[in-house]
Amino acid sequence: MAEPRGLFIVFEGGDGVGKTTQLALLAEHLRRAGHEVVVTREPGDTPAGAVIRRLLLDPATGDLDPRAEALLYAADKAQHLAQVVRPALERGAMVVCDRYVDSMLAYQGAGRVLDVAEVAAIADWATRGLHPDLTVLLDLDPALAVGQIADKDRLEDAGDEFHLRVRQGFLALAGADPDRYLVLAARDTRERIAARVAEAVAARQAAVSVAPGRLAP
Amino acid sequence: MAEPRGLFIVFEGGDGVGKTTQLALLAEHLRRAGHEVVVTREPGDTPAGAVIRRLLLDPATGDLDPRAEALLYAADKAQHLAQVVRPALERGAMVVCDRYVDSMLAYQGAGRVLDVAEVAAIADWATRGLHPDLTVLLDLDPALAVGQIADKDRLEDAGDEFHLRVRQGFLALAGADPDRYLVLAARDTRERIAARVAEAVAARQAAVSVAPGRLAP
Repeated sequence: MAEPRGLFIVFEGGDGVGKTTQLALLAEHLRRAGHEVVVTREPGDTPAGAVIRRLLLDPATGDLDPRAEALLYAADKAQHLAQVVRPALERGAMVVCDRYVDSMLAYQGAGRVLDVAEVAAIADWATRGLHPDLTVLLDLDPALAVGQIADKDRLEDAGDEFHLRVRQGFLALAGADPDRYLVLAARDTRERIAARVAEAVAARQAAVSVAPGRLAP
Repeated sequence: MAEPRGLFIVFEGGDGVGKTTQLALLAEHLRRAGHEVVVTREPGDTPAGAVIRRLLLDPATGDLDPRAEALLYAADKAQHLAQVVRPALERGAMVVCDRYVDSMLAYQGAGRVLDVAEVAAIADWATRGLHPDLTVLLDLDPALAVGQIADKDRLEDAGDEFHLRVRQGFLALAGADPDRYLVLAARDTRERIAARVAEAVAARQAAVSVAPGRLAP
């Protein structure tokens, strides 16, 4: 057996699909199994990231140039990986993260006017190419999802067509990388979703424990 | 004769070399000649940029990952070009800017631990490849320059060796692109520096007026 080490598990999907609930259920499940669990999110889960998050989501910011927006998300990611994600993985913790690079690709790439391959290259540089071990996509018709949220922030105001393109962006990313993605219908019961996620995490743990050197270098 | 149009003139150099003074003198000179002049700076000369500038320069930010720092500078540039620089150039104004891409390359590239070519690629994406018509480098031994400033911010605290590498970075950039750069000794008198700058701007105006299509596409 290889040394125990952490897994990097990301939840993706539109707003209002139940990511927060599922993050909490998975964290509880993993803690009961004896793991150190770090629950975190992008953007914003560092001091610098909190400033970036406010800038990105505050309606008072007004029009952001699409490239500026993508670069701010990338800066948040670089800081988050350096301060939170990599140190946790290196000490063997399970890192459970609300949104990661694929949100950037779906929102800034498919959702806006940028070239997805160019945005992916920026994200790859920001993250030094660190990919999740497992990405759970909670998929839902955006008309239903946004309706669950009372206060709309700047992105949620961006219109129905935008959210449809984001959903298609996520589904395209999942389709292009089926081994890493678990796509679940967000309208299923929370218990059934949690069980499917726990099962996928266990399978990934088994796979990683016999594949050493993942973090190097 | 081609249509009149703006020039993009950038001042580069360490802190305390007199960029602010020379920017003001050039702006005054150009206004007397009948030009609309936009004096601006990076980072920070947009509402979003002001937030980014505080984040970058406030000692309370603490350690920023070098990639996060470079991406924040790049985001500021993208926003600044979209909101300030390009609209001004397109209506024919003279844009006089305190720092631009080469500061990012000198500070984040040569000054820190990043690959300069990678940082240059990020900056090029952020700015859609817009280069200055003229870059004035005010060159000075950093020991003299930093000593002129009473309140040191985060970057100014980074140590003597850092500032020496930044100076070398600027000189290397100037050496690689001599047609665009005017390198002046910052210890010369302000009047003599201002005269050399005005002369270089006039030469650039003459060159640009017979080279249409600079801003296209």
